[in-house]
Amino acid sequence: MNLTMLTDFYEFTMINGFFENGCAEKTAYFDMFFRRVPDNGGFAIMSGVEQMIDYISELKFTDDDIEFLRSKEMFSEPFLEYLRNFKFECDVWAIPEGTPIFPYEPIVVVRGPAIQAQFLETMILLTINHQSLVATKTNRIVRAADGRGVMEFGSRRAQGYTGAIEGARAAYIGGAVGTACAVADKKFGVPALGTMAHSWVQMFDSEYEAFKAYAKTYPHTTTLLIDTYNVLKSGLPNAIRVFDEVLKPMGARPVGVRIDSGDITYLSKKCRKMLDEAGYPDCKIVASNSLDEYIIRDMLIQGAKIDTFGVGERLITASSEPVFGGVYKLAAVEGEDGSIIPKIKISENVAKITTPGFKQVYRLYSRETGQAMADIVTLHDEVIDDTKPYELFDPEHIWKRKTVRDFYARPLLKRIFKKGRLVYENPPLEALREYCRLEVEGLWEEVKRFENPHSYYVDLSKELWKMKNDMLSEFERES
Amino acid sequence: MNLTMLTDFYEFTMINGFFENGCAEKTAYFDMFFRRVPDNGGFAIMSGVEQMIDYISELKFTDDDIEFLRSKEMFSEPFLEYLRNFKFECDVWAIPEGTPIFPYEPIVVVRGPAIQAQFLETMILLTINHQSLVATKTNRIVRAADGRGVMEFGSRRAQGYTGAIEGARAAYIGGAVGTACAVADKKFGVPALGTMAHSWVQMFDSEYEAFKAYAKTYPHTTTLLIDTYNVLKSGLPNAIRVFDEVLKPMGARPVGVRIDSGDITYLSKKCRKMLDEAGYPDCKIVASNSLDEYIIRDMLIQGAKIDTFGVGERLITASSEPVFGGVYKLAAVEGEDGSIIPKIKISENVAKITTPGFKQVYRLYSRETGQAMADIVTLHDEVIDDTKPYELFDPEHIWKRKTVRDFYARPLLKRIFKKGRLVYENPPLEALREYCRLEVEGLWEEVKRFENPHSYYVDLSKELWKMKNDMLSEFERES
Repeated sequence: MNLTMLTDFYEFTMINGFFENGCAEKTAYFDMFFRRVPDNGGFAIMSGVEQMIDYISELKFTDDDIEFLRSKEMFSEPFLEYLRNFKFECDVWAIPEGTPIFPYEPIVVVRGPAIQAQFLETMILLTINHQSLVATKTNRIVRAADGRGVMEFGSRRAQGYTGAIEGARAAYIGGAVGTACAVADKKFGVPALGTMAHSWVQMFDSEYEAFKAYAKTYPHTTTLLIDTYNVLKSGLPNAIRVFDEVLKPMGARPVGVRIDSGDITYLSKKCRKMLDEAGYPDCKIVASNSLDEYIIRDMLIQGAKIDTFGVGERLITASSEPVFGGVYKLAAVEGEDGSIIPKIKISENVAKITTPGFKQVYRLYSRETGQAMADIVTLHDEVIDDTKPYELFDPEHIWKRKTVRDFYARPLLKRIFKKGRLVYENPPLEALREYCRLEVEGLWEEVKRFENPHSYYVDLSKELWKMKNDMLSEFERES
Repeated sequence: MNLTMLTDFYEFTMINGFFENGCAEKTAYFDMFFRRVPDNGGFAIMSGVEQMIDYISELKFTDDDIEFLRSKEMFSEPFLEYLRNFKFECDVWAIPEGTPIFPYEPIVVVRGPAIQAQFLETMILLTINHQSLVATKTNRIVRAADGRGVMEFGSRRAQGYTGAIEGARAAYIGGAVGTACAVADKKFGVPALGTMAHSWVQMFDSEYEAFKAYAKTYPHTTTLLIDTYNVLKSGLPNAIRVFDEVLKPMGARPVGVRIDSGDITYLSKKCRKMLDEAGYPDCKIVASNSLDEYIIRDMLIQGAKIDTFGVGERLITASSEPVFGGVYKLAAVEGEDGSIIPKIKISENVAKITTPGFKQVYRLYSRETGQAMADIVTLHDEVIDDTKPYELFDPEHIWKRKTVRDFYARPLLKRIFKKGRLVYENPPLEALREYCRLEVEGLWEEVKRFENPHSYYVDLSKELWKMKNDMLSEFERES
């Protein structure tokens, strides 16, 4: 499915307007950034760059699309002709997938003809917002599981097909060990697993018969769902009987049992004991049923004996806060002489004032510990000299200053498209997942906690701060 | 995109298991139902039937799909051959889109070979859960807007592409007047509208220049975004100046102004007064910015002068409760003699016990007022004689009884597929939206309120209740 027409209608009214008013070819700079981390977390996880690349690479207006737009009687024929011959010419930078990201830093930057750079808004936001939401939520759940596996189980409650498929992809980047979603395995290589629903158990004359049939069919991958009738009185005893009668004679070991209802913490402890006593200490216990990071943490505090968590609706929809609020704002235009003219969006709500200019983001890591110390948003051509101490200051409270030493500075925004040509190879999914794991490991513990996480420093360079402050002062003088 | 492989992996392990254990052709009956209305509402709105039909109609396993499954080394060759030659043979019933639906009544029923009826689970749930979620949420927002228009504005914050596109469709069924999503217009005919972002205003040398350019380009559809700098000091004065200078000489009237930030209730009252005084009482005021049903209701209580609400992320993700928890449960199988053997899922959690049997749902309407009085879940072949009084009783508290008279009974589940053949024509979207409006109008006010809505009666027929109760009693005796 070509997604070119998946866009807010106002992108068309605007770009036709740019075209009609001589701004079409004016070079514009847009930033995508977000203002707060969902669930009041300390950081988010960037995801969705690959699908953004796919979308941009496949931009094309079909005759049907042109006809649809013409039928609106709002657009000029030269403009429709421009769309018909659309050739992408922008530069695009993005922070790689799997990177921890923070509020108010540009995570995508687009430079190009206003007509094109504007048009990308809806889909860049949709794609990055959706996947970053799910990757961020999954990473929280994975941290709560404290080394145990988290499986993404949410397709049936996802918000639409791509909610399920690309949600499973983002969950994997965020640290899930696999998914229930078959097509996410086929399309992206996210390992898919699954065993049985209650209907399997009900389809046979008894739970015992159902388990026996399953074990005979899948002797080397037997995981049994043991809560269709009663976990401790029938489910687990029947499972152990089948392990003994079917698997043992074949020399096969059971993989696990799954509990999907009831007091899972209590049941898991009882089941662990019964499995151990029956000679199955290696049989894993899988838990599912409306789990999230808080429930998982609570279960573990109470000593639940669970090896893997299947997490469905609350992960795939990030149900506690199902919106990643990324925005896409004009940051600059080019003058006729090629100079960059910064643009700012003023608001009575201070949090909605944008940071103008063509920018880069540097992450400063400690040379001693490898940990991330701060991000600095700079003008695009500034260089941070990491051979010298660097003075950070809070852009809101400039008297708060701190000097960092012995660090190295890594630019985060990578060039993805150069004058419309793809110049970036998105890393394989496994590599993104591992990169994410390492980058999260490299954050302070204080930034990672769920309650009142420490605010990671995202500061402006002196040069950028001065430019923004001058524009605000001038605006105040004028109004 | 063919969605056949968008399924939980366990559907494959189960149906291969059915195949290997001689249950593949056993006739099974599955129900989709849900247990509670999101946001503690009094009812939900059915949506997504058309996409469920599309999915089923296009079921097909490609060579690629078969190869992918073979690579898992879990599935038998005869089973893979069955998939390669897959021919859909089930009967499917569903409650039509736009119908108010209630917890614990079957909203989709599938009968057919176990291997097929089981396989449909994931996508039936995904499709109906997603669209019913959005239609239900939109209907709440539309009721709060009390006759004013609600535009769906959420693409950029939707959870994936279909979250945006089919979300816009569901929102329209639920009562939205249109969408910002261009492709939802092209694909489904949901009217798409849109004017400008702040970037339009910033792209020009001044707000006045930006407004002038827009009005000249779109003199008959001029809606101006007036909060880029300051609504009352610059945005509205510049808008009125452009209405006077550009539109008036052409004999054109402005369509509206939009406010997207600040204290919108306060600003709307000021703007209304200024527009009226300037001779533009017909100029509409559009409000957007993180709205939902509660904020809209509160704005209207405080006298906001708003004609249309643009509602984004909180509608398209149903953010206050972003999950519609429909489930798909085995309700019966057929014996070798063709008899229907009811199946029940027992649970320690009483709310999770299923209602067994092959069922129909009747809605009883008052002949006098046309209002919906109760839904009765019956066995599929029961007939409710609406020439006689009918005694309702609460299935949980059977001493609670009520006799209804002077009603007509309408079966809600319509046949969609008959032995695999599509026999239903989904009504056009406009008709669904109008049907939804009328059906919601026909609900008691007590069911429609947001706080503590009255529980609409969803009762079981005596025959169905007795069957379920006998099965539960027998289970208790045995355990």
